[in-house]
Amino acid sequence: MGKTDWKAKAKALRKKLRVVKEGAAATAAAPASKAKQVSPLAPARFPTLPRIAGAEFAAVEAGVRYRNRKDVMLIRLAPGTTIAGVFTRSTTRSAAVRDCEAKLATRGSAGTGAAIVVNSGNSNAFTGKLGEEAVTAITGAVARALDMPAARVFSSSTGVIGEPLPHDRITASLPDLTAALREDAIEMAAHAMMTTDTFPKGAAATVQGDGGIIHIAGIAKGSGMIAPDMATMLVYIFTDARIPAASLQKMLSRNTDATFNSITVDSDTSTSDTLLLAATGQSAAAEIKGPVAKAFEAALHGVMRDLALQVVRDGEGATKLVEIRLTGARSNADAARAAFAIANSPLVKTAIAGQDPNWGRIVAAIGKSGAEADRDLLSIRFGDILVAEKGWRNPDYNEADGAAYMRQPELVIAVDLGLGTGKRTVWTCDLTARYIEINADYRS
Amino acid sequence: MGKTDWKAKAKALRKKLRVVKEGAAATAAAPASKAKQVSPLAPARFPTLPRIAGAEFAAVEAGVRYRNRKDVMLIRLAPGTTIAGVFTRSTTRSAAVRDCEAKLATRGSAGTGAAIVVNSGNSNAFTGKLGEEAVTAITGAVARALDMPAARVFSSSTGVIGEPLPHDRITASLPDLTAALREDAIEMAAHAMMTTDTFPKGAAATVQGDGGIIHIAGIAKGSGMIAPDMATMLVYIFTDARIPAASLQKMLSRNTDATFNSITVDSDTSTSDTLLLAATGQSAAAEIKGPVAKAFEAALHGVMRDLALQVVRDGEGATKLVEIRLTGARSNADAARAAFAIANSPLVKTAIAGQDPNWGRIVAAIGKSGAEADRDLLSIRFGDILVAEKGWRNPDYNEADGAAYMRQPELVIAVDLGLGTGKRTVWTCDLTARYIEINADYRS
Repeated sequence: MGKTDWKAKAKALRKKLRVVKEGAAATAAAPASKAKQVSPLAPARFPTLPRIAGAEFAAVEAGVRYRNRKDVMLIRLAPGTTIAGVFTRSTTRSAAVRDCEAKLATRGSAGTGAAIVVNSGNSNAFTGKLGEEAVTAITGAVARALDMPAARVFSSSTGVIGEPLPHDRITASLPDLTAALREDAIEMAAHAMMTTDTFPKGAAATVQGDGGIIHIAGIAKGSGMIAPDMATMLVYIFTDARIPAASLQKMLSRNTDATFNSITVDSDTSTSDTLLLAATGQSAAAEIKGPVAKAFEAALHGVMRDLALQVVRDGEGATKLVEIRLTGARSNADAARAAFAIANSPLVKTAIAGQDPNWGRIVAAIGKSGAEADRDLLSIRFGDILVAEKGWRNPDYNEADGAAYMRQPELVIAVDLGLGTGKRTVWTCDLTARYIEINADYRS
Repeated sequence: MGKTDWKAKAKALRKKLRVVKEGAAATAAAPASKAKQVSPLAPARFPTLPRIAGAEFAAVEAGVRYRNRKDVMLIRLAPGTTIAGVFTRSTTRSAAVRDCEAKLATRGSAGTGAAIVVNSGNSNAFTGKLGEEAVTAITGAVARALDMPAARVFSSSTGVIGEPLPHDRITASLPDLTAALREDAIEMAAHAMMTTDTFPKGAAATVQGDGGIIHIAGIAKGSGMIAPDMATMLVYIFTDARIPAASLQKMLSRNTDATFNSITVDSDTSTSDTLLLAATGQSAAAEIKGPVAKAFEAALHGVMRDLALQVVRDGEGATKLVEIRLTGARSNADAARAAFAIANSPLVKTAIAGQDPNWGRIVAAIGKSGAEADRDLLSIRFGDILVAEKGWRNPDYNEADGAAYMRQPELVIAVDLGLGTGKRTVWTCDLTARYIEINADYRS
C-alpha cells in the first residue's frame, strides 16, 4: 500500500476517533476550539430574534476560566418586569439556584427593574460557604451598578464544579458590561454562556395582542443534561407582554413538563439548571387575557419546546434526534416511566447510533421501566413502519425498511402499550463514542 | 511525513478505535472471534471447580445460531435434588423464565431427578406464542430423554431477541448431549452459554458439614446487564448439600440483593436473567442446620458474590471494576438509590474510563438520585483518600493523588451522606468507547 493510502487511512481513522486532545489543558480556550465541530443536528443558523423592549444584553471577556472568549453576560430588565422561574430538582443544587428560588418565592421589590448575570467556566457548585458568598458578592455588585435592589438580581453559573468562583473577575467586569448593554445584543449573550455547546441556541415567536404585537425571544445553553465540568442547561426567555408575575409563573410551570422536563441526553441532571422567564410589559398591547392569553401560552410553549429540542440537538456526541412517543399506558406516570426508560437506555441509544432497528432493546427497556406492560399487547413503530405487535415481530415487517428508516438524522419511535390512555412524548439523542471522548478524555 | 509514519499512525488510531467489523455478519462465529479480546479485569484462569456428586454436565454444537462452537448445554441432577431460583423482574421476561417460575412455584414432582437445558444464540424472547411452544417442546424432549417429569426440566435461552428459536436443532442434539453427560464437564457448560462474554465464569467453596464435606460450584454468563442480541445474566450453582427446597429458596433469596442485585454494567435489565441453585443432597454430611447452615450460607454468599463480580469484570468494554460503598443514608432504600445513581451515571462512568478523579460528577449523581442528601454533610473518598467533605473539596486533597488512585484497575469510591445508618454497596464498571462499539456497531 502506498504512502497516500496510509495517510488517507490515518485521516479517516482520526476523523472517526476525534480525540479531543485540545481539551486537555484545563484553562485553555477549549470550548472555543470544540465549537468548530458543530453538531450535525444544529439548525442552519442562529435565528433572527426580535428586540424585546425593556430587555438589554451585554457580554464581555472576564477571564473566569476561558481565554479569548466572552464568558460573562448581563441582562438589564426595565422597571415593571415580572419574572418566573423553574430550577433543577437536584438536592445538591448550587448556591445561585438556591438564591434565585428564594428571591422568586418572596417576590421582593417587584415593580423595580431586574437583572440576570450569568458566567461560564465555573459552576460555583459544591463550593461550601464560599459559594453563597460569591453569589451575594456578584448580585450585590450588579444591584449597585444598575441601581436596583439585590432581591431583583438573579445569577447563574456554569462550568467546573468544586472550585471557588473568582467572583472578583466578574464584578471587575461590571463597568464594561453596563456600558455595553443594548437591546440588540441577545445573540452575544447566548454565546457567552456556552460551554461544551457546539452552537448558540435561540428561538422566537410573536403573538397579536389587544392593541399591539407581543414578542417572545429566548436563548439557551446545554449539551449534556449535566457535566459539572462543562455543561448545564440554562434558559432565559423574554417577552414584552404585560402579565402579572403569578400568572407568568403558572404559565411557565404548566409548560415545563412537556418541554424542558421531556428531554434527556444522558439521564444526568445538573446541579445548576435554571430557566427564567421575564415579561417587561412594554408591548403596546394590553395585559394579556382570554384568547390572547391562550395564543401567548401556545407561542411560549413553542419557544420552550424549540429551545429544549436544540439542547438535545446539541447533545454531547449526538448524531440523531429521537422522539419517543409513548401511548396506551395505564397512566401518564407509567407512560413517562416507560418513555424515559427507552430514552435513557444505553443499549437503545447505542443501537440508534449504529443505525440498527433493534426493537428488541426497546421491549427490554419497557420491561425494566416499572410501568405496567403486557408483551402481547404492545406495539412498536419506527416512523410509519409497524415493527412489532401482539408479542412478536409484525410478519409484514422487513428489516431492510427498518434499517433504511434508521439512517435518517431525526427519528420517531412510537410505542403503544395497549393498556389505557396514559401518554408522554420525550426526546433524546443517540449515544456515540464521541460522548465518551468528550466526557472521558476531557480532563485526562 | 514519510510512509511509515502514516502507517504507524493509522495502526495506532485503529488500535484505539477497534471497530468491530468482524461482528457485522450476524450469523458468523462472532462471539468466538470477540472472545479473543479478553477483558483486562478477567481472572487469570477458570478456577478448578469441585465435582458435585449428582450433577452431570454436557455441551454440544447444535448450530442454534453460531458455527464452530458449543451452544447448548445440559445438566442432569440426581433424584432427591432440591432447586431454588430467582429471576429477572422485567415485565417483558421471556417464556423460559416464566416457565421456570411456574415450575418452582408449584414444586411439581419434587424428589425425582431434574435437568437444566441452556442454549446461546437465541433468547426466545418476544417471540409470542411460538416462544411458549419452543419451551414446551424443549423441556418435554429433555424429560423424555432423561426419563423424568417435564415439571422438573428448567430451561434458559440467551441470544438474539424476536426470532423464533429453532428448537428442533436443540432437541435433535439431545442424543449427543445425554451420551456426553459427565460430572467433570462443568467448565464446558460455562463455555457453551457465553455470548458477548470474553471469559467463562466459575466459582467454588467447600464447607465442613456434619459427617462430611459440602461442596459448592457455580458457573455464570453475562457481560451487559442486558443486550437482547447477545447478552443476559445466567447463573447456575450446584451443591451436594442436603437441604429442603424451602430452606434453599429462602437462603438464595436472602443473598441475592447483596450480590446479583448489586451489580450494574449499563443499568439495563435482561428479559431472561436466571439464577438456579440446585442441591443434590449427595454429600456424606447430614442435612444442614445450625452452625453448618450459617457456614454454608456464608460460603454460598461468597460464591454468589464472586460470580456477580465476574459479570462486572466482563462488563462490555470495561477497564475498571468499581465498588461504590454508600453509607450514612437516612435508610437502606435511600442508600441504594444514591449508590445506583452513582453506579449508573454515564458521566461518572466516563470519568472513571478517563481515569479522572471527577468527584463533582459523584455529587451531581447523588443530587439527582432522589435520596435525601445535604451538600454540607456528605463526604467522598477514593480508596483512603478523603476528597470532599463539609460541602467542599477537602483542603488537604491533592488532585495528583486522586489521579494516581484512578489509574488502578480496581477502585473503591466511598460516599457517606452523614444522615443516618442506611447503607448499600454496589459494583459497576467504567463506560468506554468499546461499549459503544460492541453495542452500536455489532449488527450494523
